[in-house]
Amino acid sequence: MTELTIQASLLEALESEQYDRVSKLLTTLHPSEIADLLESLPARSREILWGLIEPGQEGNVLSHAQDAVRTGLLELMQPEQVADATIGLATDDAADILQDLPDEVIDSVLLSMDAQNRARVSAILSYPEDTAGGLMNIDVVSVRADVPLDVVCRYLRQLGKLPEHTDSLMVVDRQSQYMGTLPLSSVLTMKPDVTVGEIMQTGMAILATTPDHEVARIFAQRDLISAAVVDEQDKLLGRITVDDVVDVIQDSAEQAVMNMAGLGEDDMFAPVLFSARRRAIWLAINLLTAFLASWVIGRFENTIEQLVALAVLMPIVASMGGNAGIQTLTIAVRGLALGQLSKANAPSLLLKEFAVGALNGVIWACVVALIAVIWFGKIALGIVIGVAMIVNLLTAAVAGAVIPMLLKKAGVDPAIASGVLLTAVTDVVGFMTFLGLATIFLMP
Amino acid sequence: MTELTIQASLLEALESEQYDRVSKLLTTLHPSEIADLLESLPARSREILWGLIEPGQEGNVLSHAQDAVRTGLLELMQPEQVADATIGLATDDAADILQDLPDEVIDSVLLSMDAQNRARVSAILSYPEDTAGGLMNIDVVSVRADVPLDVVCRYLRQLGKLPEHTDSLMVVDRQSQYMGTLPLSSVLTMKPDVTVGEIMQTGMAILATTPDHEVARIFAQRDLISAAVVDEQDKLLGRITVDDVVDVIQDSAEQAVMNMAGLGEDDMFAPVLFSARRRAIWLAINLLTAFLASWVIGRFENTIEQLVALAVLMPIVASMGGNAGIQTLTIAVRGLALGQLSKANAPSLLLKEFAVGALNGVIWACVVALIAVIWFGKIALGIVIGVAMIVNLLTAAVAGAVIPMLLKKAGVDPAIASGVLLTAVTDVVGFMTFLGLATIFLMP
Repeated sequence: MTELTIQASLLEALESEQYDRVSKLLTTLHPSEIADLLESLPARSREILWGLIEPGQEGNVLSHAQDAVRTGLLELMQPEQVADATIGLATDDAADILQDLPDEVIDSVLLSMDAQNRARVSAILSYPEDTAGGLMNIDVVSVRADVPLDVVCRYLRQLGKLPEHTDSLMVVDRQSQYMGTLPLSSVLTMKPDVTVGEIMQTGMAILATTPDHEVARIFAQRDLISAAVVDEQDKLLGRITVDDVVDVIQDSAEQAVMNMAGLGEDDMFAPVLFSARRRAIWLAINLLTAFLASWVIGRFENTIEQLVALAVLMPIVASMGGNAGIQTLTIAVRGLALGQLSKANAPSLLLKEFAVGALNGVIWACVVALIAVIWFGKIALGIVIGVAMIVNLLTAAVAGAVIPMLLKKAGVDPAIASGVLLTAVTDVVGFMTFLGLATIFLMP
Repeated sequence: MTELTIQASLLEALESEQYDRVSKLLTTLHPSEIADLLESLPARSREILWGLIEPGQEGNVLSHAQDAVRTGLLELMQPEQVADATIGLATDDAADILQDLPDEVIDSVLLSMDAQNRARVSAILSYPEDTAGGLMNIDVVSVRADVPLDVVCRYLRQLGKLPEHTDSLMVVDRQSQYMGTLPLSSVLTMKPDVTVGEIMQTGMAILATTPDHEVARIFAQRDLISAAVVDEQDKLLGRITVDDVVDVIQDSAEQAVMNMAGLGEDDMFAPVLFSARRRAIWLAINLLTAFLASWVIGRFENTIEQLVALAVLMPIVASMGGNAGIQTLTIAVRGLALGQLSKANAPSLLLKEFAVGALNGVIWACVVALIAVIWFGKIALGIVIGVAMIVNLLTAAVAGAVIPMLLKKAGVDPAIASGVLLTAVTDVVGFMTFLGLATIFLMP
């Protein structure tokens, strides 16, 4: 059976309440596949399936589930159950799970752990979840620089097992100061009498307070598999492996798309009230901009009364401006996020977008003007809508480039707020130019 | 100097034409940082900076640049220069660069390579760029299952160097059939007399024809660092390492955001004509939907003439429907992309979104109705706009959930086409309900 058919049969068994069969099928799936399955289920079925997962698997499944779903599942568990579930997990995964719990519950879970685990998890919990410290794993194998490789080999053989995803050892001095890394491949390929210090890589370490998106950028840019995490005194605290960074990249990418629609982290099957409340805020903001546009239109009631064709055509001017503006905006927001747009090249971008806006403005102005003339038989109306289109597409280009930069300067995330502001600008300018010009030139 | 101040001084030196200083500063940057810098420059300065990069660095910089920028830089180079630049690159990076060249040029570059390199790069080029075969690196170290670890150790020491990012060896039989992987950490920690076959991991290999987004999903789900790539007969072809997968994830995440604005892969400083043409297509499609909405409004010219308040308020109904619909749509598109939305749970999602739409519809309908009554002093107008809002938000919920699923079934990428279709639906339904109800109930 392929992965997909297993999941299909499992859902079928779940629906027909053949729970024995469900349990059996669950054992053939990877914990991450079980997490995916949970995420795709409505709340009630999700709880039933969760109850059928073996306790030994719970921790692994939780660590693969997305935050919103995980929080829901954790609410079904007692602190001791959570503590039991974290046994055997990598320390960073255990800390990840705990970070989704309310503070009081975190303490009870920590108290249910054995002393060694508690100390290790607490070390990570002392850093915010979205920093290098929160991402790191404190299970590291470290060696001294003056040791020859054959001694390293004996030491590793004695250990018998290395932490998951270990691709290199950390080199530290007597004060646990970070000195460099020693790839496992070097240990295997170099001569046994060479010392660690002679062949270690003195690459940079990441400060524990570095934000996670910056960690992701460094990993992606340098093609890293793992990196050392240090404190301000260069003391080795742990290491970050690329699999955790992949999660950060995926989450932030998803977040970017969700932000564009004004959604927070939303779970496909979050409770109706929860989702409705979250989304209501965004709709409220949009309602404000919609009423702003209405108010502008309201200023021209007399004009519209005399020439209803204006009411028919006005959405075109606003909507073309909005769409063209969003294109410029997306380019600018991306440039800012990647650090490629700065004061130095902002004028060049503005100039280019203005030129693109002018070009597309003229082209579509002609098309729309022509259609308006044919439709309503008034050449003057065609000229007015054409000019309004050009003005609005130029405004859209400038606003699309400038709004994200201003927001960033003001400390607001451009990815979230830019779109609403842009639409407000293109709506207001679009309606005002079109109806204003019509009032001046088309009214008797 | 930190990375950022180096880049700032470099840009300054470039502007003041102190090219010696630029060259000197370039040597302190990582190739990926140089690539970032090139991406942030307008076309002319980009060419000047490119001319100042040492030939030995060109290949590394190219392999870190995004496709659009890379294609531009490659146009400045002769085939022999491209061939020289690929010397010393990992085979997959070299193949990546070549894939951006026109077919005739690829052949000349291959001819300028030495025979061994040519054969290696050709092997990768025979697979499309966006498949596992196109991503893979053919530099693998393979061992037989019946060999004891101490022999493996001697063999590795003889090799003297392993390909970059090697975290495990590949285990193959006499016919080069893939059998499993042997993590370097096992080689170092297990007893020397154990054979490879006893401790190898028999994890799955990835078929060379697997699409790259599926490869990314597998890596992210299984927390893989590397994976074997095989052909249909299970013959080992190469391996994929996570750093290449990180690029795939980043690119597809960016693409998702760009798609929402109807942008293809767009370079911040692509030529004006190029950008204008690309975006014009999207604007043309939006113009069609805008005219569709206008046509609907045009059906009600008489009604509007008698009650201009309708023209003032009608954008609100359409815009609230559009915004609410995009929220549902984003959830559905994401669910489809992650494989969490299927026939089995589609009814549950539809039901949930319908409930959220109803709830938000009623709330905002009351708010808008109240404002309309206060503004225009007509209770009947308030009721009409309230009912129209509820109808449109329910329509938006259904359309937002159903459109992506229908598109997917029709083989169209929901991420690209859903938004336009949704707006067309919410505009048409919004204007039609509001103006239609007004014609029936508000006209004498």
